[in-house]
Formats: sequence, structure tokens, C-alpha cells
Amino acid sequence: MTIATPQGFRAAGVACGLKSTGAKDLALVVNDGSPDACAVAGVFTANRFPAAPVQWSRAVLADAHTRPRAIVLNSGGANASSGPEGLKDTEAMAARTAEQLGISPREVLVCSTGLIGERLALPLLLTGIDRAAAALDTTDEAAQDAAWAILTTDTRPKQAGTQGSYTVAGMAKGAGMLAPQLATMLVVLTTDALITDEIAQTALTRATALTFDRLDSDGCMSTNDTVLLLASGASGITPPLDEFAERVTTTCHDLAMQLLADAEGAEHDIAITVDGATTTDAALAVGRAIARANLVKAAIYGHDPNWGRILSAVGTVPEEVAPYQSDQVDIEINHVRVVKNGDPDQPRSLVDLTERAVTINVHLHAGPAQATIWTNDLTHAYVEENSAYPS
Amino acid sequence: MTIATPQGFRAAGVACGLKSTGAKDLALVVNDGSPDACAVAGVFTANRFPAAPVQWSRAVLADAHTRPRAIVLNSGGANASSGPEGLKDTEAMAARTAEQLGISPREVLVCSTGLIGERLALPLLLTGIDRAAAALDTTDEAAQDAAWAILTTDTRPKQAGTQGSYTVAGMAKGAGMLAPQLATMLVVLTTDALITDEIAQTALTRATALTFDRLDSDGCMSTNDTVLLLASGASGITPPLDEFAERVTTTCHDLAMQLLADAEGAEHDIAITVDGATTTDAALAVGRAIARANLVKAAIYGHDPNWGRILSAVGTVPEEVAPYQSDQVDIEINHVRVVKNGDPDQPRSLVDLTERAVTINVHLHAGPAQATIWTNDLTHAYVEENSAYPS
Repeated sequence: MTIATPQGFRAAGVACGLKSTGAKDLALVVNDGSPDACAVAGVFTANRFPAAPVQWSRAVLADAHTRPRAIVLNSGGANASSGPEGLKDTEAMAARTAEQLGISPREVLVCSTGLIGERLALPLLLTGIDRAAAALDTTDEAAQDAAWAILTTDTRPKQAGTQGSYTVAGMAKGAGMLAPQLATMLVVLTTDALITDEIAQTALTRATALTFDRLDSDGCMSTNDTVLLLASGASGITPPLDEFAERVTTTCHDLAMQLLADAEGAEHDIAITVDGATTTDAALAVGRAIARANLVKAAIYGHDPNWGRILSAVGTVPEEVAPYQSDQVDIEINHVRVVKNGDPDQPRSLVDLTERAVTINVHLHAGPAQATIWTNDLTHAYVEENSAYPS
Repeated sequence: MTIATPQGFRAAGVACGLKSTGAKDLALVVNDGSPDACAVAGVFTANRFPAAPVQWSRAVLADAHTRPRAIVLNSGGANASSGPEGLKDTEAMAARTAEQLGISPREVLVCSTGLIGERLALPLLLTGIDRAAAALDTTDEAAQDAAWAILTTDTRPKQAGTQGSYTVAGMAKGAGMLAPQLATMLVVLTTDALITDEIAQTALTRATALTFDRLDSDGCMSTNDTVLLLASGASGITPPLDEFAERVTTTCHDLAMQLLADAEGAEHDIAITVDGATTTDAALAVGRAIARANLVKAAIYGHDPNWGRILSAVGTVPEEVAPYQSDQVDIEINHVRVVKNGDPDQPRSLVDLTERAVTINVHLHAGPAQATIWTNDLTHAYVEENSAYPS
């Protein structure tokens, strides 16, 4: 499945020279649906230093007089904290894309990813946009090229989707800085469902809250995180909101798990499920406390089922955030109950951490709510990649 | 300076066999001041799974009918999450110490540090208490033995103090899991000032809030953190509260910097100062966000002045927590202003990160408050020590 699988979309990915390796670094996605039938939605980073493309895309999406129908994406530079010139560079990217497609610049969304604080090499980008526009196609190959072009330190493209009377598909990039309220992450979703902007936005907001927002690989939140949904209406099918939202969520979940599996230097994918919480927020707070405990993450890297560190992390969440009784908390690691009522239970030697997938289940016995946070272990390779990554 | 420098104290440190290396692992500190002149205070972890010795010590300190005058401390086992038997083991340690000293068990405070979730080897401990009691002495050597006996993965003992008409001294342990609301950390302070319990507690609470609470080496909070202050009154000097609190703070600050310098696997000590904040809490929130950003910490390990990661971390603090305007934020790394008004300023190549000491200064230009958080870099050695550390 690619983002060109739904009817009414073309895509392209080319190398314009931003990546010194010569790899693809510029992508276009175009919604060819009839203007009356199109819809669009977006979710952006909560970071208070949003990159220029985030500022631009948020503004054009909020503008009631325009409905964006194309996306230009580049890797090899985040265009974040790049000063007033950075915003001009983003505008120039939108303008050149619009010119090539014969639409208005305010119908073009922009996404960038890469290093913060550097100007983009605009001449390379503009020439690249021309070449990408010429390469636009409805084939899976063209969509694959786009999926490759948005990668940074990722080792492989991420694509997913669900097909039926209408189709939802998506591509994603992000291999580090995965964090709450979005990972460093660009995601483009396409669908041929016939929906309104409101339905698109409601479904996308629900889906990201349940998937990308619960991915917390290293606790860091990017300046560039963007999730966009384009609907072409080309299937002629108008699904009920709940069904549509569920299919968007399924696609986002699949992409999120691919992001987790490709996180920088990670050797374990850890699913932390907290149940018996008074509220979902309480469950999430406890899950995040564990996901952010470097001592827990390093222990799992070392195949050490060190539940004391997990319990200790649970204990750092203030009572007003997550009410529970310490003597009622149970913890399972890979389904071995190592803590019962806050005290040691099964021997930790029964826990096998050799597999990549790890589950940590915390039962608070305080209420009906539950939530899962996904994270990775803390490895030598993570330190290496993030200390040696060029500044 | 040792904890035996103030008049009226004896100390001892012995090896009782808890540490498989044969190193010292049991310490005693006794306040020989006249019962009328003594005072005591304590600050404990906020973790909701406090270890048995924390539960015990908190209870006896809160008891108006007793005033603790001795401390027994062990390394080689935290006695945390050790079940109902764990509390009995702590009581047995207090009882044996009391028997040796001819006082009540409720006059004995207990501190333990080491692995969570294991029972202590009580017979070894009880014999050790007898030998430590026999070794109690007012000499610096005896106090040095105590400072060694409380260490775990620390590479060296930590001692500090200030001398005058009265003396304040302290010893500390803690080399990982350093975190807010205390590091994994045991600290014993002694003074011969003639003060009340209330003055002792007020001064200690103030001092820890400004020092240990702002040490955030790896964001993890222990189940065992304890800071105790014993006053003998033996100097006959009653200082004003502010002066006394300042001297306690000076001693705690010195110990905190020694903890930072000896943090597990660290190669850089990072002082993050946030000024121009609306409140101290806002400054602390921004400082902690930076201190907990693994990407920032890994970059500094790699000698990479990656201010984009710092800005990104600042941007994760919600506006309701720390009001500021993104286009007014300046950042200096080692006094080179790399960000001015939220945009790039001096080239990052001017920043030299070869020295161990690193300063990050963030100017929010939003108010009068400032605060400093101390942290360490994220290194291969940290991962190694915390993944290979025996469970």
C-alpha cells in the first residue's frame, strides 16, 4: 500500500542535492480530486518554536478561503530557527510548487525535516521541485520514491493503509526525537473517501491522540512534527465518522509501530500499558514516567528485568496526577508478575528479555481507565547516533 | 572537613559483608550533645514507594515524644519494596543500634542504599552494628570510614563543611539516579550550633530546595533519598536562622557539586541557568526540560553545541507553566550567544565543549526570576553502567 493507492493522488520523490549522499530528499504529493470533493486536515507539533514550514502550513490550513491540495516535503534541513529568511524560503517552496501545478501558493502545504538552525539551499530545492513536478505519477513506484525522499536517519520507508470501498493510506518518517504530542515525524495520509474538512480533522485528531501522541521514544519533541491528511473524494463513498476515524487510526497505529521499530539505535520496542487508573490522563502520566526513566530503558537494553526501577518511576508521579495506593500496585514484565501489591512476587529470573518486543503492564487498581505508551530502550547505539550526528 | 569536625559527634564505618568486594558498607553517626541542646531534622524522597528505612525515619522524626540522636546507614541493599519483612529488618537495625548505644530504638534513624527488592542480610548487619559501635570515635579517620561505608557506585567519598564560631559539616553518597526532589542520595549533616528542631528543619528544607532538589542528573527519583541534620549544641552558639540556613546551604551545595562530578559515567557537568522567567518555578521547569532532553545530553557528550536541541527542549514547556515569547529567547552555551531573539546568532563553531564544566544560559526576557539546574551528559559509560549493573 502506498499513498498513491487511494484514487485521485499523484506523488513523486527526487534527489535535489540537499542530502550529501545523493539520496532522494524532495517529495511532492498532489490531490487531484475534484475541488468540490476534496478535504484536508492537519495536526502539528505543540513545540513553541515551530519551524517555518509548520508556521506556513498551519496558517494556510486555518485560512477559510483556501483548501490546500498539494504538499511539498524535503529532508536534509528542518528550516527551523532559521530567522525571517526561513519563512521566505518556505514561501518560495510553496510558490514554486504552485507555479508548477497551476494552483495558488496557499494551496500548498510544506514540510521540512533535518537539522535545526540552518538555511535551506533554496536554489537546489527550487530546481528539485521542477523535476519532482515533472515526475508526478499515480504509480506505486512514484509514491515509494516520495516515501524514501522524506527519510533522515531512518533506515527504511514507512507505509501503511487499509483498503475497502474506500482506501486510507499513509507514509511516515521519523527515527529519533520521537516524543509526546508527536514524534519528529512527518506523516502524509491520503484517502479517496468523500468527506468534509471537519470530518477529516476530527478523525485525524482522534487518530493522532491514540497513536503518535503515545509514542515516546526519547522524550524529545520536535519543532517540525506534522501529520497531514488529504481526501480526494474520488471513491464517492462517504463513511460514518466513527468508521472513518477508526480506519485512520489503524493506519496511524501501523505507521507508529514502524517508527518505533526503526527508532535510532533501539534494540527493544517497549509497550507500557497502565490499567486500573482513575482516568486516561492518569494512565498516560504513569506510562510516560516509565517511558522516560533512563534507568529503566538502560536496564531493558541490558536484558535486566529491574522492576525496582519501574516501581521507582511509577512512584515519581504525584498523587494529584494519578491517584493510587502504593500497596495495591502490580507490575508484569513480559507477562511475569514481578510485583504484587507493591511487593516482590515472581522471581525476576523468570523474565526473558531477549526478544525485541517487551511488554510492561502496570495495574494500579484505582479505576477503570487504561492507556499504552510505546518507547524504546536506551542503547549504546542511541548515544552514538545522537552524539556523533553532525551538528 | 568531616562530620566529626563539629563538636559532639562520633562516627564509624566498617565492612559487615553486604558488599561482596569486602569494602566498608555500614556506618554509624552518633550525636553526643546534651539531650537539652540537641536538634534533628530530615528531608525525604517524594517517591510514593518509599523504602522501609525512609518510612521508619520519617515516622520517628515526626514523633514529638522522641528526638533521634543516632543514625545507622548501610550500603549494599536499599531495603525498598522488600515487603513487611523489610520494615522489620529496619526496626531490627534500629533496635540493635539502640542497644549498643544505650538509647531507645526510636532515637535511631536508618538509611539504606543499594538494590531495590532484595531482603537485607540481617545477621551480617547486626554483627556489623556491634563492631561499628565499638569503633565509634570523634576522629576524622572514623568519620572518613563512615563516608566510605555509605558509597555504592560512587568512585569517591563526598565531604564538605564550613567552620567558624560553630561548624556545619556533611557527607553524601549518590552516583546515579540523581533527580529532582533529591538524588539517590544519602546525606548526613552535623553541626555544633545550638538550635531548635524547628530552626534545623527550616534551614534544611531551604537548603535542599536550593541544592539537591536542583540536581537532575538523569531524571530518576529514588525510593531511598534521605537528608538528615543532627545538631549537638556543643559550640554553645545560636546563630540567626538566615545565617545558619545559608551555611547549611553552602555545605549542601558543595556536596551536590561533588555528587554531580561523580555521577555514573558522566563526562560533563552542565549548569543550566534560566533567567528572565516570570517565577522561579517557571525557570525550574525550563531548566528541567533541558536537563531531561536526552538529545541535548548526548550532543554535549559528543562536543556538539547543538542549540537547536536546546531550543526544542525549551519549546516543550507549556505556556501556562512558563510564559515567554518565542521571539525573545536568547541562549548561550559556554557564554557564546548562539541564539538571539529565537534566531541563530553566533556560529556554533565558537563554542568549545572540551572542558568538563559546561554552562547553558537561557534568557526568557519575561520576568525577574532565575534558577539553575545541574545535570550531566548522556554517555556510553552511563548506558554501560546502568545496563550491566547487576539486577
